[in-house]
Amino acid sequence: MNMKKEIRVLGIDDSPFDKFRDSYVTVVGVFFRGGSYADGVVSTKVRVDGLNSTSKLAEMVNRSRFRSQLKCVFIDGLNMAGFNVIDIHRLNALIGIPVIVVVRRKPDIDNIKSVLKKLGMDRKIRLLDKAGPPVKAGKVFIQCAGMTVEKAAELVKLTATHSFIPEPVRVAHLIGAALVNGESKGNA
Amino acid sequence: MNMKKEIRVLGIDDSPFDKFRDSYVTVVGVFFRGGSYADGVVSTKVRVDGLNSTSKLAEMVNRSRFRSQLKCVFIDGLNMAGFNVIDIHRLNALIGIPVIVVVRRKPDIDNIKSVLKKLGMDRKIRLLDKAGPPVKAGKVFIQCAGMTVEKAAELVKLTATHSFIPEPVRVAHLIGAALVNGESKGNA
Repeated sequence: MNMKKEIRVLGIDDSPFDKFRDSYVTVVGVFFRGGSYADGVVSTKVRVDGLNSTSKLAEMVNRSRFRSQLKCVFIDGLNMAGFNVIDIHRLNALIGIPVIVVVRRKPDIDNIKSVLKKLGMDRKIRLLDKAGPPVKAGKVFIQCAGMTVEKAAELVKLTATHSFIPEPVRVAHLIGAALVNGESKGNA
Repeated sequence: MNMKKEIRVLGIDDSPFDKFRDSYVTVVGVFFRGGSYADGVVSTKVRVDGLNSTSKLAEMVNRSRFRSQLKCVFIDGLNMAGFNVIDIHRLNALIGIPVIVVVRRKPDIDNIKSVLKKLGMDRKIRLLDKAGPPVKAGKVFIQCAGMTVEKAAELVKLTATHSFIPEPVRVAHLIGAALVNGESKGNA
């Protein structure tokens, strides 16, 4: 597989929020050429613990002027805004572009499921199962839709130029944190 | 002068706003290592056509964890949020770091002054004069405080790796536009 270094990719992360106060959370997407530089930023809002992350992310990607050139979408975790769980296979179908979830630490799926169970969010448990188990790729764990794990791992490696996670996700995280706290801290 | 390529710099831009509706405008700052990659984002709000841009930018820089390592602050124009004119010499004194204003096109100072005159904002006309005339540096125009024009021009050249303006300013512009419109368009 011959992958150009300047392929266009999108990285998505949500911003921090106050679960006792906020109903909506801003989600930031950053377009990158490979792992090299940002050439666009998009944003949307999703409901805290809601069900609309998949459709909101699809809208955000589909209305973007870069959509036709996108090779993949990286997302920092399967949940946005608390437990607004993303259906990555449906997202892949809605946007027609491979979706790769990237996390630094292996998520404790059993624990998340037991919390969702207590909250009566059984539908979301099925979305977790549907996403498939997180697979180790380099120093991170990934889940993907619309692309093989091998190709997804290559794209992570190609774009993770300044940390273990793809640059657009790292920068989306910096932006999300700064919007809420006035300054970004820590890692995606 | 031996300038390391990975020096830490900050680029600042304001976001678009609706002058009939908005009282405050979000201002975004992006920390970069040279013209290479972002390693932090900060934000603040300034009043539309207000007088507080200098103090708000100083606070934003001074509370940042990267402040002690900053080599310069690039700003996209002398005005934030309409006519909230920055006093770049006072800003330089408040933060102890050189300030470089970078614009693509030579501003029509006489026109800006006549608008300020009509609005009764004579204090701001003095700030424009105090900033000194914009000087051509490569493809852009700069004004600076706390640094010679020659050194400032070198820093612009070093950090303008993907356009004619420093990377942190270009990315701050993308972020500001996306926050307001959902997507960034055009250039800083």
